[in-house]
Amino acid sequence: MESAQDRKPCGASRTIMTQLVFPQDTNHHGTMFGGKLMEYIDKTAAIAGMRHARKPVVTASSDSMDFLKPIRLGEVIQLEAFVTRTFRSSMEIYVKVDSEQPYTGERQTTVTAFLTGVALGEDGRPAPVPEVYPETEEERRLHESAEERHAQRQERRRRRSGK
Amino acid sequence: MESAQDRKPCGASRTIMTQLVFPQDTNHHGTMFGGKLMEYIDKTAAIAGMRHARKPVVTASSDSMDFLKPIRLGEVIQLEAFVTRTFRSSMEIYVKVDSEQPYTGERQTTVTAFLTGVALGEDGRPAPVPEVYPETEEERRLHESAEERHAQRQERRRRRSGK
Amino acid sequence: MESAQDRKPCGASRTIMTQLVFPQDTNHHGTMFGGKLMEYIDKTAAIAGMRHARKPVVTASSDSMDFLKPIRLGEVIQLEAFVTRTFRSSMEIYVKVDSEQPYTGERQTTVTAFLTGVALGEDGRPAPVPEVYPETEEERRLHESAEERHAQRQERRRRRSGK
Amino acid sequence: MESAQDRKPCGASRTIMTQLVFPQDTNHHGTMFGGKLMEYIDKTAAIAGMRHARKPVVTASSDSMDFLKPIRLGEVIQLEAFVTRTFRSSMEIYVKVDSEQPYTGERQTTVTAFLTGVALGEDGRPAPVPEVYPETEEERRLHESAEERHAQRQERRRRRSGK
Amino acid sequence: MESAQDRKPCGASRTIMTQLVFPQDTNHHGTMFGGKLMEYIDKTAAIAGMRHARKPVVTASSDSMDFLKPIRLGEVIQLEAFVTRTFRSSMEIYVKVDSEQPYTGERQTTVTAFLTGVALGEDGRPAPVPEVYPETEEERRLHESAEERHAQRQERRRRRSGK
Amino acid sequence: MESAQDRKPCGASRTIMTQLVFPQDTNHHGTMFGGKLMEYIDKTAAIAGMRHARKPVVTASSDSMDFLKPIRLGEVIQLEAFVTRTFRSSMEIYVKVDSEQPYTGERQTTVTAFLTGVALGEDGRPAPVPEVYPETEEERRLHESAEERHAQRQERRRRRSGK
Ligand SMILES: CC(C)(COP(=O)(O)OP(=O)(O)OC[C@H]1O[C@@H](n2cnc3c(N)ncnc32)[C@H](O)[C@@H]1OP(=O)(O)O)[C@@H](O)C(=O)NCCC(=O)NCCS
Ligand SMILES: CC(C)(COP(=O)(O)OP(=O)(O)OC[C@H]1O[C@@H](n2cnc3c(N)ncnc32)[C@H](O)[C@@H]1OP(=O)(O)O)[C@@H](O)C(=O)NCCC(=O)NCCS
Ligand SMILES: CC(C)(COP(=O)(O)OP(=O)(O)OC[C@H]1O[C@@H](n2cnc3c(N)ncnc32)[C@H](O)[C@@H]1OP(=O)(O)O)[C@@H](O)C(=O)NCCC(=O)NCCS
Ligand SMILES: CC(C)(COP(=O)(O)OP(=O)(O)OC[C@H]1O[C@@H](n2cnc3c(N)ncnc32)[C@H](O)[C@@H]1OP(=O)(O)O)[C@@H](O)C(=O)NCCC(=O)NCCS
Repeated sequence: MESAQDRKPCGASRTIMTQLVFPQDTNHHGTMFGGKLMEYIDKTAAIAGMRHARKPVVTASSDSMDFLKPIRLGEVIQLEAFVTRTFRSSMEIYVKVDSEQPYTGERQTTVTAFLTGVALGEDGRPAPVPEVYPETEEERRLHESAEERHAQRQERRRRRSGK
Repeated sequence: MESAQDRKPCGASRTIMTQLVFPQDTNHHGTMFGGKLMEYIDKTAAIAGMRHARKPVVTASSDSMDFLKPIRLGEVIQLEAFVTRTFRSSMEIYVKVDSEQPYTGERQTTVTAFLTGVALGEDGRPAPVPEVYPETEEERRLHESAEERHAQRQERRRRRSGK
Repeated sequence: MESAQDRKPCGASRTIMTQLVFPQDTNHHGTMFGGKLMEYIDKTAAIAGMRHARKPVVTASSDSMDFLKPIRLGEVIQLEAFVTRTFRSSMEIYVKVDSEQPYTGERQTTVTAFLTGVALGEDGRPAPVPEVYPETEEERRLHESAEERHAQRQERRRRRSGK
Repeated sequence: MESAQDRKPCGASRTIMTQLVFPQDTNHHGTMFGGKLMEYIDKTAAIAGMRHARKPVVTASSDSMDFLKPIRLGEVIQLEAFVTRTFRSSMEIYVKVDSEQPYTGERQTTVTAFLTGVALGEDGRPAPVPEVYPETEEERRLHESAEERHAQRQERRRRRSGK
Repeated sequence: MESAQDRKPCGASRTIMTQLVFPQDTNHHGTMFGGKLMEYIDKTAAIAGMRHARKPVVTASSDSMDFLKPIRLGEVIQLEAFVTRTFRSSMEIYVKVDSEQPYTGERQTTVTAFLTGVALGEDGRPAPVPEVYPETEEERRLHESAEERHAQRQERRRRRSGK
Repeated sequence: MESAQDRKPCGASRTIMTQLVFPQDTNHHGTMFGGKLMEYIDKTAAIAGMRHARKPVVTASSDSMDFLKPIRLGEVIQLEAFVTRTFRSSMEIYVKVDSEQPYTGERQTTVTAFLTGVALGEDGRPAPVPEVYPETEEERRLHESAEERHAQRQERRRRRSGK
């Protein structure tokens, strides 16, 4: 049986969601609307978090997201998420969205996002998660820089409660 | 006729969306899932942006969002958005989400978010927006602190392109 | 604690829902389809009813609704609802829908509707609601004319059961 | 080819939509929410109207609707619509909703509604529709009483514009 | 009370669902996407199965479906389903989809499908269903040919478990 | 530039869609309803087909699908699709659905399906696709057995038009 003490590689939580942009995903300009993409980002991140923690996971926060290009009706988007670093009950989850022009195959990264998922125990309270370790170059880079992003989030929390 | 040179108060873009949390908004724990709330946040912000700019507006980025409390099935949520500060074609839009227990009326702020909307001209390129000015205490505070958040976003952009 | 004996102003139930008309809200003519607008009307009315009664509320009936103008893809609509008059467990709820051309700000009332909500007690049976009183001119006018609409609904009921 | 002069029986527009009530159709009480039912009513009426007029049809108004019983998750509902009477470009469309307990087959009428659909010509303006004639007892009864409901709607219009 | 021993005609399960193809049902080519039609097919079949069995019914399989023609935005589709033959706890359900050009009334069959529904008892296990008998010519033809399709499904099951 | 003459490996079209089963995906028994799963299957297959053909692709048919196990609210499902064999304008696309219990990680195949996608040229008529070749053991097995399934589909077509 898995226990909270087990270490797991980043790859164990890797989750892919591919989607085709249909009219119900678009705004009145014929491009995908940001809120719908955020919905897919959050869902993909939630699955990655549960695959790592093997517990219910809720989204505690999302860091900034930059929408670099419009995504058009009929394009394919591929979301990829994995856990980059774990703390006690919280995990940083990285989500990268690529959009792909379906008739040329041309592909580019449209959004990257970091979300924090918190695992919940049977009592509904935050519960510890296994430690994560990186294996690839990209995983290592994100694992290392996670420390600083975590400090910024803690700072954000402190300021909010200080207010 | 309105022109890009006109100054407008924050209040002119103020937009309220009230929602009742139904099963289709919830996850498998019976609480609202973050992605759905992000969708409502983005839509409310887009309306506020269009009300200020009177032009098509796309979401360029969202800053960090913290989800402070779960929102339950059957609760009422009220989203309120307005433009806090304008730059050339971009506007900072503030969104506050309150959730309300419908049988007691008890209310609390669940999320606050800052999004950046960009107005587009008829050629689909970023186009100038009128200047915004604050009138209430809350508006003034957000208008002033917007400068620093803007600098951070510019810094984020620089780092991304430097990579 | 609030009790059924407390009187409350109309304003206490006032509820606003703003929406942006997206492709998923439209029919094959590129205009909003009536059924989707009825869905928003019912949801906004339900929230207003719960805010007044602080109890679960179900829709017992809707009076006639006239759809005066088509609403186009990309337009903004604003629904506003409040309780105009209360009976024992039932409340008349008024909903006004304005549509707003987003690039000119031009606004017009597109639909007005009266719904009847009934509050339910813990046993799932109709339960008394606090009395409502009007404060503004519009509220007063609607509060007074509610008597006659109520009589018509009662008449409708009588005829139906007589059949 | 059909022309606007052709008379058609009520039966030619008869339209049936059967649905199974799923979680996405329900509110937080586990019963179907009124707005969703109104959406189905409007869609079924629109099809009946198009089947009669063989032209685009928009909903001009809905008369009062009474929701006689809650409809529960997992129940089957059957909507039936047909054109009862035609005027120049407008048609009265009757919709009856029966709900059916799926394990006993017990069935009851839950809502009846009258909607007015208006046919549009190629210029998007109201355009004449063929005359309708009743054949069954129910059709005849509704065809005859339509006159009076029509007069009430015209009265409603007059009052609105007089205001 | 109905019992599993009662025989019932095919007509007792006959279920009709009419739909109007709206933007949310279409793909990026402006035609209905197959997956959405499959969803309507499955729902209509489920209702027919429950009307025959008067028990919860799950979809065990769908046989091949051929999509003969694209269905366009704004077209009307009519699905018709009934139970053609029963085995012990399983039923073959036939679904025929016609699409109708709304302005000419021209109609053609677009898809035909056979699904297998299995009735479940209170313990959630497969439970016997009443026998079905055909009355019309079409029902008789489908009732008879069902034997062979059933044999093929059983063969499919055998091969799968043999693997 | 890619041309229809280029051969491509099965892997080039491989498409993964992971989903979390939410209330809006379930029926009134709290399990995923078949129609929703069919929708995801069709969408994943369409993306795989476009990735192979780099042209618009429509679903011409789906072969039989067997739903081996119910999928519960809160489970994770992973759909995986690729092109197994190409003919002239048509491609056989294989879709495998695994469901994953999120707290144990236990995984099983729930459905396997074969769909036929047809590539369309700029004139909207069937257009040739590149040839596909298998690389892995699973791909080879499916590539070889595709011949027989293709013959059965052609037989189905013949019979239908003979009727
Ligand atoms: C996430 C949540 C459970 C945290 O609860 P809490 O009372 O703050 O719990 P704690 O203080 O014990 O914090 C638990 C962990 O969450 C982290 N955390 C809490 N808020 C955070 C935030 N906004 N951003 C990042 N991490 C956060 C803490 O740092 C802590 O991490 P650690 O265990 O790894 O050290 C709670 O805020 C919540 O339920 N939020 C709503 C989640 C939700 O429903 N999202 C969708 C909204 S629609
Ligand atoms: C319906 C509509 C086309 C009528 O336009 P209009 O300028 O009032 O046109 P007219 O005065 O020529 O009336 C046309 C017919 O509609 C009838 N009509 C208009 N409003 C009506 C109402 N509220 N209730 C019943 N009938 C009405 C008129 O009596 C007339 O009938 P007739 O031709 O059979 O004698 C127009 O009001 C409209 O577009 N409404 C919006 C429809 C819509 O988009 N619905 C969905 C909203 S989300
Ligand atoms: C798929 C479609 C384009 C085929 O058109 P058609 O006139 O039969 O064209 P053709 O006879 O030239 O056949 C084209 C190819 O499709 C194949 N095909 C046609 N019907 C098929 C079926 N039911 N199953 C499998 N393959 C089929 C043919 O074998 C042929 O293959 P090949 O080019 O590899 O030899 C047409 O049937 C169609 O548009 N169907 C609707 C698609 C759709 O909209 N799906 C969603 C419905 S909601
Ligand atoms: C359908 C189901 C209950 C059958 O369970 P089982 O353990 O195979 O049960 P049994 O072997 O007793 O078979 C029961 C009946 O189903 C039939 N059956 C089972 N699998 C079948 C298939 N793939 N196709 C056709 N019939 C099938 C059997 O022939 C038997 O029929 P009979 O009672 O008329 O002789 C089970 O496979 C299941 O729950 N599947 C998932 C259903 C579902 O949730 N669908 C939506 C998925 S998103």
